[in-house]
Amino acid sequence: MPDAVNGLNEECGLFGVWNNPAAADITYLGLHTLQHRGQEGAGIVGLTGAGMLRHRGLGLLAEVFTKPDQLASLQGRAALGHVRYSTAGGRVLENIQPLLFRFTTTGDVALAHNGNLTNARSLRAQLEREGAIFQSTSDTEVLMHLIRRSDKTNFVDQLKEALNQVHGGFAFMLLTEHGLYAASDPNGFRPLVVGTLPDGGTVVCSETAALNAVGATFVQDVAPGGLVVVDRNGLRIDHYTTKTELAVCSMEYVYFARPDSEIHGVNVHQARVRMGKRLAAEQPVDADIVCGVPNSSLSAAMGYAQASGIPYEMGLVKSQYVARTFIQPTQELRERSVRMKLSAIRPVVAGKRVVLVDDSLVRGTTALQIVKLLRDAGAAAVHLRISSPPLRFPCFYGIDIQSTHELMAANHSVADMRQILHVDSLGFLSVDGLERSVGLTTAAPHHGLCVAYFTGEYPTPLDDYAATLQDELSQLNIKVAEVSA
Amino acid sequence: MPDAVNGLNEECGLFGVWNNPAAADITYLGLHTLQHRGQEGAGIVGLTGAGMLRHRGLGLLAEVFTKPDQLASLQGRAALGHVRYSTAGGRVLENIQPLLFRFTTTGDVALAHNGNLTNARSLRAQLEREGAIFQSTSDTEVLMHLIRRSDKTNFVDQLKEALNQVHGGFAFMLLTEHGLYAASDPNGFRPLVVGTLPDGGTVVCSETAALNAVGATFVQDVAPGGLVVVDRNGLRIDHYTTKTELAVCSMEYVYFARPDSEIHGVNVHQARVRMGKRLAAEQPVDADIVCGVPNSSLSAAMGYAQASGIPYEMGLVKSQYVARTFIQPTQELRERSVRMKLSAIRPVVAGKRVVLVDDSLVRGTTALQIVKLLRDAGAAAVHLRISSPPLRFPCFYGIDIQSTHELMAANHSVADMRQILHVDSLGFLSVDGLERSVGLTTAAPHHGLCVAYFTGEYPTPLDDYAATLQDELSQLNIKVAEVSA
Amino acid sequence: MPDAVNGLNEECGLFGVWNNPAAADITYLGLHTLQHRGQEGAGIVGLTGAGMLRHRGLGLLAEVFTKPDQLASLQGRAALGHVRYSTAGGRVLENIQPLLFRFTTTGDVALAHNGNLTNARSLRAQLEREGAIFQSTSDTEVLMHLIRRSDKTNFVDQLKEALNQVHGGFAFMLLTEHGLYAASDPNGFRPLVVGTLPDGGTVVCSETAALNAVGATFVQDVAPGGLVVVDRNGLRIDHYTTKTELAVCSMEYVYFARPDSEIHGVNVHQARVRMGKRLAAEQPVDADIVCGVPNSSLSAAMGYAQASGIPYEMGLVKSQYVARTFIQPTQELRERSVRMKLSAIRPVVAGKRVVLVDDSLVRGTTALQIVKLLRDAGAAAVHLRISSPPLRFPCFYGIDIQSTHELMAANHSVADMRQILHVDSLGFLSVDGLERSVGLTTAAPHHGLCVAYFTGEYPTPLDDYAATLQDELSQLNIKVAEVSA
Amino acid sequence: MPDAVNGLNEECGLFGVWNNPAAADITYLGLHTLQHRGQEGAGIVGLTGAGMLRHRGLGLLAEVFTKPDQLASLQGRAALGHVRYSTAGGRVLENIQPLLFRFTTTGDVALAHNGNLTNARSLRAQLEREGAIFQSTSDTEVLMHLIRRSDKTNFVDQLKEALNQVHGGFAFMLLTEHGLYAASDPNGFRPLVVGTLPDGGTVVCSETAALNAVGATFVQDVAPGGLVVVDRNGLRIDHYTTKTELAVCSMEYVYFARPDSEIHGVNVHQARVRMGKRLAAEQPVDADIVCGVPNSSLSAAMGYAQASGIPYEMGLVKSQYVARTFIQPTQELRERSVRMKLSAIRPVVAGKRVVLVDDSLVRGTTALQIVKLLRDAGAAAVHLRISSPPLRFPCFYGIDIQSTHELMAANHSVADMRQILHVDSLGFLSVDGLERSVGLTTAAPHHGLCVAYFTGEYPTPLDDYAATLQDELSQLNIKVAEVSA
Repeated sequence: MPDAVNGLNEECGLFGVWNNPAAADITYLGLHTLQHRGQEGAGIVGLTGAGMLRHRGLGLLAEVFTKPDQLASLQGRAALGHVRYSTAGGRVLENIQPLLFRFTTTGDVALAHNGNLTNARSLRAQLEREGAIFQSTSDTEVLMHLIRRSDKTNFVDQLKEALNQVHGGFAFMLLTEHGLYAASDPNGFRPLVVGTLPDGGTVVCSETAALNAVGATFVQDVAPGGLVVVDRNGLRIDHYTTKTELAVCSMEYVYFARPDSEIHGVNVHQARVRMGKRLAAEQPVDADIVCGVPNSSLSAAMGYAQASGIPYEMGLVKSQYVARTFIQPTQELRERSVRMKLSAIRPVVAGKRVVLVDDSLVRGTTALQIVKLLRDAGAAAVHLRISSPPLRFPCFYGIDIQSTHELMAANHSVADMRQILHVDSLGFLSVDGLERSVGLTTAAPHHGLCVAYFTGEYPTPLDDYAATLQDELSQLNIKVAEVSA
Repeated sequence: MPDAVNGLNEECGLFGVWNNPAAADITYLGLHTLQHRGQEGAGIVGLTGAGMLRHRGLGLLAEVFTKPDQLASLQGRAALGHVRYSTAGGRVLENIQPLLFRFTTTGDVALAHNGNLTNARSLRAQLEREGAIFQSTSDTEVLMHLIRRSDKTNFVDQLKEALNQVHGGFAFMLLTEHGLYAASDPNGFRPLVVGTLPDGGTVVCSETAALNAVGATFVQDVAPGGLVVVDRNGLRIDHYTTKTELAVCSMEYVYFARPDSEIHGVNVHQARVRMGKRLAAEQPVDADIVCGVPNSSLSAAMGYAQASGIPYEMGLVKSQYVARTFIQPTQELRERSVRMKLSAIRPVVAGKRVVLVDDSLVRGTTALQIVKLLRDAGAAAVHLRISSPPLRFPCFYGIDIQSTHELMAANHSVADMRQILHVDSLGFLSVDGLERSVGLTTAAPHHGLCVAYFTGEYPTPLDDYAATLQDELSQLNIKVAEVSA
Repeated sequence: MPDAVNGLNEECGLFGVWNNPAAADITYLGLHTLQHRGQEGAGIVGLTGAGMLRHRGLGLLAEVFTKPDQLASLQGRAALGHVRYSTAGGRVLENIQPLLFRFTTTGDVALAHNGNLTNARSLRAQLEREGAIFQSTSDTEVLMHLIRRSDKTNFVDQLKEALNQVHGGFAFMLLTEHGLYAASDPNGFRPLVVGTLPDGGTVVCSETAALNAVGATFVQDVAPGGLVVVDRNGLRIDHYTTKTELAVCSMEYVYFARPDSEIHGVNVHQARVRMGKRLAAEQPVDADIVCGVPNSSLSAAMGYAQASGIPYEMGLVKSQYVARTFIQPTQELRERSVRMKLSAIRPVVAGKRVVLVDDSLVRGTTALQIVKLLRDAGAAAVHLRISSPPLRFPCFYGIDIQSTHELMAANHSVADMRQILHVDSLGFLSVDGLERSVGLTTAAPHHGLCVAYFTGEYPTPLDDYAATLQDELSQLNIKVAEVSA
Repeated sequence: MPDAVNGLNEECGLFGVWNNPAAADITYLGLHTLQHRGQEGAGIVGLTGAGMLRHRGLGLLAEVFTKPDQLASLQGRAALGHVRYSTAGGRVLENIQPLLFRFTTTGDVALAHNGNLTNARSLRAQLEREGAIFQSTSDTEVLMHLIRRSDKTNFVDQLKEALNQVHGGFAFMLLTEHGLYAASDPNGFRPLVVGTLPDGGTVVCSETAALNAVGATFVQDVAPGGLVVVDRNGLRIDHYTTKTELAVCSMEYVYFARPDSEIHGVNVHQARVRMGKRLAAEQPVDADIVCGVPNSSLSAAMGYAQASGIPYEMGLVKSQYVARTFIQPTQELRERSVRMKLSAIRPVVAGKRVVLVDDSLVRGTTALQIVKLLRDAGAAAVHLRISSPPLRFPCFYGIDIQSTHELMAANHSVADMRQILHVDSLGFLSVDGLERSVGLTTAAPHHGLCVAYFTGEYPTPLDDYAATLQDELSQLNIKVAEVSA
């Protein structure tokens, strides 16, 4: 799961409960388990006796909920929670979800979103021209307008009509007085699962690990194009479109999701072990020990060690405490502040040829510092192995890779990168190796994965982003024909 | 390193810098690396152009230092920092160290302490009778009174005289306008090391990991009875007594210290791997996988796996986020809140006979819950292996085991404990096995370790604590003859 | 000005600046001067180089703005600020103004409101049916929808069309990238004035005292039905309707507005002195001293003293510090907590027959306690004189008198009230006396004042409130024919 | 009472309760009433079932106590509270009182102090040489050392011995498990009074207004050299010295104390009215209206008006809200920020010759700005009248006038001051006039007042301050012979 060591950031986690008297408490526990999906904001809406109430704020869940009554006041029979990652520009309270809409005629609606819409900008412009008003800069508000402008006569039909108008990657959850609603985009980019609580009630959330954390029993993954409705009639699995094709975000398996989660039946830790094994086969090296970058790369490192026969060792230690620093970033102190997060166990690595396994390579800056840590601790050689393919293209479905400019592999060859990172060798897992390591059983392209960040093959039209991407790629001399948009 | 999962708590970490213009920044970085030694309070005193200034508070370092100028205002050529664990009763700001004493005639003194004095109570009563006033309930204030009441004519001699009057386990550090001073008790219970900074200046601190974190080069461990003086004449290694006998706290190797630290030349991670290996030899079992309780027991689990040939697996995952909960602790929710910290990877453990390696067993409550986690995830059998001997006696030298009543092994046989914990088998490392795993090269008893919590053989008289302990042990029918006091 | 001693609360203060580089600073100063108009929330929107930014929060201005960069980040060439009083139910952050709307196609709009709309509920229901979404429970959001749904082609025309659809009491201010806009309802219930800054720029705000505080020169009151536009073409005084009739809220003169403000040319302090003088003529009494309830009733008390020849004395003192109390409200301590706000000067009142002048009588609870304060200090008699008529009807234009049930004078005769309040005599100013004391020169009914709370003659239809009021009054046996709605 | 408009600051307020179950609540109420005596720190020690507990912090009482349990946890049968003003250098938490001393042998002691000791520095140096340790820079800690070093065998005798060793101005209060103790210096510089609660228990505090606020009945002023003991034997009025001579700080009557307090039988408001009357006789002027600077000078202004026959008017209004400003102090904005505190009522002063009555003149900066306010509002003339003599000498007994350099009247003649302040005339009350206005009935010099700040006649030796004062005065060409030290 993400460590803030890596430069990648997920864009959100969702957790909703229907029909349980401890709904807000359970949502708090569930969001805690999903904290890795977003650390910049958190919020919970509770369906209470006094109507829908919300508490939200900037920061970690534990920074937003600091007094008992902030949670207690939300207690009721249903709740919807959200943890959020956001880009710098949008780091304002207004954008923290769930959004909460007040309708005196039809009852309040809470709305939360994980993902990114590719046609939000054009939809919004159209809505503004038609008189719609907006109070945030986030994509999410668009969906509420589409729902309310639908001519359909009941909420589920309105919601279905709205869902058919938005494109891109999304898991949406909505809470009303009448029910909890959850929908996945037609490609199922973002994970979304359903479970039931032992003492009654239904949970819908981003990862199975959160079901486990609250003692819920897994029911099923929300299918691409699926719409889950939980109301007084119980749980109903519906869909809003049949034009679907599975393309789960492969970075969920590589890096984002928790190792104890299962996505479409595949355990994330075990998928990572297989990535490490396959990486050992594709990118072998003669060395003394294998070390993973803690904690997200330990699974892959164990796999590499098992397949290669090179001993798995604990060469790096990660601090469990938040490393906040006010220190002026002189070159020397910058290095020191990296050491607030990671340190090497000197006698483990001293004199050893080390295979360093990391799960991904984004900007390369952190890898450079980890390599230096190992060399300072006496490593005789450092062979860097990445358990995913080179990241060369931006993501438009909910991961914060917004530009090719920041991607090391979009701007450099593997040979160049090896030199820049001062490693003795550098190897990546192949796209095919990644797909087979996950091993989803589906007839969909790329074994049901989205691998656009590696290949430029986007599973959907890019709408509002198409033109900008073309420009960017032509500057980089990347063959734009590769791109599907 | 401690995880707050276990029930044991260290009582402090120390970090001081002399003669470096970034003294306060470096101390902040160093304390961050020592945060595992105390999470309930933190403070830094800086020797600034405006005199000695202090910032301290309750909570983690990152909760105490929340604004840039809190640290910036302490910048000067020297600093002394402290992180503190404290028992509930003493959790007040007044006890947060460093203590800071204001002398208009001779200049200010900052004082910080890691450990516990066995004769503090009687010394304090004597001092009070002689007119001394106290503004805290901590032992530490006693030392300052002894220093000021000494008849000696210079500070070092006064300090030496004072150090010879206090008994027990201690690492003391003092900062004046003229120098930085560090002393270890005659048994060297608590680790204390000296290093030099690349750009000038000297560091004294609790663990070598903190030296590494700030880029300092290790010089030496402070010897039992040793007194380190750093002043305008540079670094001087002195001593205040020659009646010494090495008895390093064995729990530092078992649990407290960071895996990347070295104490008296022995790397902590590697000592733990050897404990795991020896545990496998002493307490073998037929099983499918070995799992450690993350993070502190992973080293021992790797050792057990290597020696037993049973595969090492990642069966448990630990959350990296602080789990603060306001939730009413009903039985059901209490279990859920444990799952905020730890979770099992179901497909790893399902159907498997698991060797669960933990580093120590205190109250047994957490172990019970972890065993349940594994069984809920489908483990076919759980064999609990503890990489240290049964904890049966309190510690009076700085670890928070204050009463035998809370120690499971002081109140139950191994057979009983196996039943209570619902494990298929239970085995502990022997005292001899522990001593040999650490492997200090010394002629001192117990290979230079304090193993009093396991055997009742206390390396020093217990002074103020002797009578109470005798009472307690006689109630438990533990043979009091065992106890050395 | 209001003291939180009285039970009445104003519903807001407005302050906007256009075309001055210190716009946010000036707005902060201006809002401070208007703090008496609302103490439960404050917010400022700044038109900055980075677009429209907002800081808002619950509480006093000084509690909302606690760090320099919260204000500094709003600095730009224009700003709009708001202080808010809100009823308990709506005391949530979402309702704190200015509201800020984000339009990617036409630019952002900030909106602030002082007053209450009588047809907000029905307009909102209609808008919701037409697909509009709401994110607050305040009336104010309605106006933005009406503006955006207008078919007009420029902002001013859209705004005018919207203003013609809302009824009741309002002063609206809007800020866009292109200008600052301010409008007053057709009766001019709430004060709103325009001024110019010495170093350039225009200010529009609720009271002239705020103009003085920022060094601005008064230009004019915004007329009923008036629309002020300030943009790159300078200041333009326009109107959106000509169907107007002046009916300034008389309680602004009696209680709400600052004594150093002037509304439609009448200084508030001097109007209060005249009310006191007329009260002395209408309700004379034989007594030794005249005391006012500090601070809002001191002007009227001085007038009473001057006209009656009875000496004006300082019999009561008001604490200048916020009296926040956590103490359990037992009867005894409740009395004590009143004494945190007010106290009597014993030797001034002891043995004296006191004329106690207060500006209004709402629930009577505070008056009862003040009378007791005076008697405990030895007053020989207490003659209560109220410098306004009995409050018997609710206000629907922006003052927090929402129900007749809480109004003492709506439920009791003057004779009854005298007994309940334990005063030796009780007298009120007549409606005619009030109107003549203010002395506006206009042909409008009631000399241009709204006196509905005294007489039930509402200057406008009551729309959404009409039915409820009829019910309430019939229960009270108040002749409903009095009511104009 | 002080308004933070003036440049003078009191150094503390004391409030203690013995034998009442709501001791902490009552202390909180009492301190609120004494808030004007110190706004930079507050603290309460409660004698609870769990021993003596303390909550203290920087800022106003309402900023220090922000959560209900902060006060609730202090509840017990006795409490001691303190509000503090402190000079910039000492504005650290360590100096916030009550100080709390922990004695394991004899029980805890809380100590609070209002005043300033003239021999603290030399006593402290002596104590340090004898081995005493200090943890604050405040004078107060000295007393605790003296008590504990006494050879006497009971606490009261030890306290008496200690009190005889300290010189200067002081009101000390101490709380132990056995009693509440209060002592006044031999001149009675600072007020200190005793009262009884209706439901049992005794209160000792700085001013009678605080007795009234908690419903306590006044018993008596603590006499110079007096020692009040409240314990299980009830209230005992004792003394520690008979060498006494009343010299109440005259500034208590002029400015510091609340108008509703009585000091040695003289009501403060009425004393101020008499000062105003006498000022009118000593410094008459032909004018149209009399205005006081709110709130502290209103009493004197009323007196001036009564004696002169010139009408008393409300020409200035003071904001009741805290004026915190982050704004960069350019000249223009500095003026504006003064207007956050005070404003003129234009039609009251326009065209009028105004007698502006202020209670004291320290640096002259605020007076200059108020004069400008009046002139900007159209005043035809401003005649400044000060209801106390010119401040020319520092105070060493507890008022923050530490240097003659900052005193306008120590550096300028009255004629010069008139010009600097741009007033049409300037007049001060004479020392004799002040003494007669207060009118204490005593044979002590200066009618029982300390008038040292006006005349340089200090009632006690100046000890540690004597030499510095001589230097300063000789620089100013003030005749040092005047000074009594």
